[in-house]
Amino acid sequence: MTKRLLLAAVAALALPAPALAQVMDAAQLRDAALKDDLAYEITEGLTTEVGPRLAGTEAEARARAWAVKKLNALGFKNVRVEPFRMPVWVRGEETAEIVAPFPQKLYLTALGNSGATAAAGMTAEVVYFPTLAALQAAPDGSLRGKIAFVSHAMMPTQDGSSYGYFGAARRSGPAIASRKGAAAMLIRSIGTDYHRNPHAGGTNFPDGVKPIPAAALSIPDAEQLERVLKRGSPVRIKLTLTPRQTGMKESGNVIAEVPGSDPAAGIVLIGGHLDSWDLGTGAIDDATGVAITTAAAKRIMDAGTPRRTIRVVWFGAEEVGVFGGRAYGEAHATDNHVAAAESDFGADRIWRFEINLPEGAKAVGDRLAAALAPLGISRGTSKAGDGADVGPIMARGVAAIDLNQSGLDYFNLHHTPDDTLDKVDPAKLRQNVAAWTTMLAIVADAPEAIGRVTPAR
Amino acid sequence: MTKRLLLAAVAALALPAPALAQVMDAAQLRDAALKDDLAYEITEGLTTEVGPRLAGTEAEARARAWAVKKLNALGFKNVRVEPFRMPVWVRGEETAEIVAPFPQKLYLTALGNSGATAAAGMTAEVVYFPTLAALQAAPDGSLRGKIAFVSHAMMPTQDGSSYGYFGAARRSGPAIASRKGAAAMLIRSIGTDYHRNPHAGGTNFPDGVKPIPAAALSIPDAEQLERVLKRGSPVRIKLTLTPRQTGMKESGNVIAEVPGSDPAAGIVLIGGHLDSWDLGTGAIDDATGVAITTAAAKRIMDAGTPRRTIRVVWFGAEEVGVFGGRAYGEAHATDNHVAAAESDFGADRIWRFEINLPEGAKAVGDRLAAALAPLGISRGTSKAGDGADVGPIMARGVAAIDLNQSGLDYFNLHHTPDDTLDKVDPAKLRQNVAAWTTMLAIVADAPEAIGRVTPAR
Repeated sequence: MTKRLLLAAVAALALPAPALAQVMDAAQLRDAALKDDLAYEITEGLTTEVGPRLAGTEAEARARAWAVKKLNALGFKNVRVEPFRMPVWVRGEETAEIVAPFPQKLYLTALGNSGATAAAGMTAEVVYFPTLAALQAAPDGSLRGKIAFVSHAMMPTQDGSSYGYFGAARRSGPAIASRKGAAAMLIRSIGTDYHRNPHAGGTNFPDGVKPIPAAALSIPDAEQLERVLKRGSPVRIKLTLTPRQTGMKESGNVIAEVPGSDPAAGIVLIGGHLDSWDLGTGAIDDATGVAITTAAAKRIMDAGTPRRTIRVVWFGAEEVGVFGGRAYGEAHATDNHVAAAESDFGADRIWRFEINLPEGAKAVGDRLAAALAPLGISRGTSKAGDGADVGPIMARGVAAIDLNQSGLDYFNLHHTPDDTLDKVDPAKLRQNVAAWTTMLAIVADAPEAIGRVTPAR
Repeated sequence: MTKRLLLAAVAALALPAPALAQVMDAAQLRDAALKDDLAYEITEGLTTEVGPRLAGTEAEARARAWAVKKLNALGFKNVRVEPFRMPVWVRGEETAEIVAPFPQKLYLTALGNSGATAAAGMTAEVVYFPTLAALQAAPDGSLRGKIAFVSHAMMPTQDGSSYGYFGAARRSGPAIASRKGAAAMLIRSIGTDYHRNPHAGGTNFPDGVKPIPAAALSIPDAEQLERVLKRGSPVRIKLTLTPRQTGMKESGNVIAEVPGSDPAAGIVLIGGHLDSWDLGTGAIDDATGVAITTAAAKRIMDAGTPRRTIRVVWFGAEEVGVFGGRAYGEAHATDNHVAAAESDFGADRIWRFEINLPEGAKAVGDRLAAALAPLGISRGTSKAGDGADVGPIMARGVAAIDLNQSGLDYFNLHHTPDDTLDKVDPAKLRQNVAAWTTMLAIVADAPEAIGRVTPAR
């Protein structure tokens, strides 16, 4: 080896200067976090002692009280609730049966913001559409008095990207059907399982569009209805859905902090959402999100004082319209956030990370890559910016880090009665805590300034 | 090789004489049956065009009409319904919620023959028992006004034998609790899945024992209730169950035949049950049972005329008390049955066969072993005698053949809303049809006389 090559090799081995200036040992914290029990403890506690916690209900209020008590007990600082008000829709009765030609019950659940049938139900003929595009192509008025049925079969993807495409049937389908005169709308659940558990989720009726009764059939039921329709006889369904809008109610964000040593270095914002849909106990959506981020912040707190303040937010009212994220975004628009990250995609292993960091903090991304690799996490090439609740903050040009959980199984459980504690794998949860702890150790303690970025969206 | 050894080897290779006398080529029929589509077609048709078919209801009557039409269309002879009457219990409302200390809804379903609460429900404290033995050990009167909760966790077994042990909590638990003064009984579902689908099933209240409200929690709910109880505060549940006994109604067995060439050679009795529990569409319990046995009989019919008559019975009212099997046993006690076999354990692969054949028909068992081995089916050493519906006939000393399906996954679906068509694997269904076709080719066409045996039970 020539002397020049030898020197180059030595230079390559040397740690870059900013890394040497980090106080926290990310690798050591990472490895210790693989033994974490706190995230599971939080998940178990919240799902057991509160259970389902629909936004704006007394159950969500109990969840906030539980959160405040837990975060104080863990030693976080500045634990507080920031209340806000939001419209609350609640489920009523929900039953359906094929009346003709083959009488049988169907399992379904009303979509959030669904209109109601008469208390005694309604009976109408079903018109089948294989996709949302086919519904969109139906002539205006052609659905008058009918039940539109869109049975678009979702396929899972590791990065969850298929939710945007397939989820449109739920988000927009009922309003499209209403505009065309439909009396009601049924969709195949936006999900990938084969259980008799329908997937809840919100739909939207823009101003001036009549909110018709709208519900999701479980996937076995949607396929059953397709088979019945394929026999060729007119299919009539009796549908009873009695949800209602109950007006404006109180929700709130629960906030806790690990104060940093350098107030001027800004705030690293992390969290998940405290509310859940009402059918399950919201274990993977999103008790694990608040649990993972809180457990990671607690590990940093116990290891010393990071340079930057870590702010953990358990957002309220995410599922029904990101009311908590928007309230936070308005209340804290001028806070000195320097980075944001959210955990709201279940409890499966993190497989990839992505960043949106300014050029001056490029080395932070490199240190993340090196420290996360042993957890099986590779670096993606897209610009980070995930997270509904931290979205309003990221939209202001705050740097973003995405720790992407695998979505291959997520839509087996998403918004169903089956989202319960038994679905949480403690080993995978620990991998998540280790990744978040690593990320916080590097980002909150980075000696570099972390300035503004162009947001991903 | 000596001449003596050579002769012995040739003798060993030669087929035994009775095999040569069989007209039907079991191996050829077996291999052709691995392409069977009829069993799936029957399963799909019955579960789609009828769906759930609780014994004694109009849904089961529609199922009989469907069966008669199908069996005639397939070319079976002597297709008929043999009606009988039986008591009918029907489900009402069924809801439950933990009222204190952590309010939340629980998912459950009433057990067959459950008593009813008041229409407005009842609220009482829960007393926990980890096993049925623990409930049995509770002092008389100690449960007065309480809800007894037995949360015995079932483990799966390939041969299904664990159902007897764990199922006792469902079959006998409520009567035991009633005798001790309990106001109601909850059990952990007798099942092995982790979905929010409770497992239905019958319970028994002997004469003189008050039928208390009795229900099965889904397994996630049973574990949730256990976690809540472990917190140590008194747990109160509001329970509303409004099932009712509706009196004696008509059910019936549907019978079809493949007439044999030798009436004196007797009848081979096969079948499954037509009725199902009401929560699912009875796909694996037991549409596949009637479908497999019917498809196999149809293959024999299409291949020629077997020596013996094959009688296929789609039994009514099995789930709620084997009323169809008992009615058949009484009506056909003196028919010349020579062998009986039943398919009522799902649609998974057959892994083993067992026999109870008289000494004179020992070679039939050997031919079965040779012909079933290529399907991955090995010979068991116990005396055959499975099948609730054919039980009364087997009890008379009729020879028995068991074709055992794997039970490792069966109790994930058994008696739940999840027992739907999508759970049926067409490839496994074909393996079943191939095994049954093989069995029928050998047994129905056996030249040996098949006399009486000592029943297994």
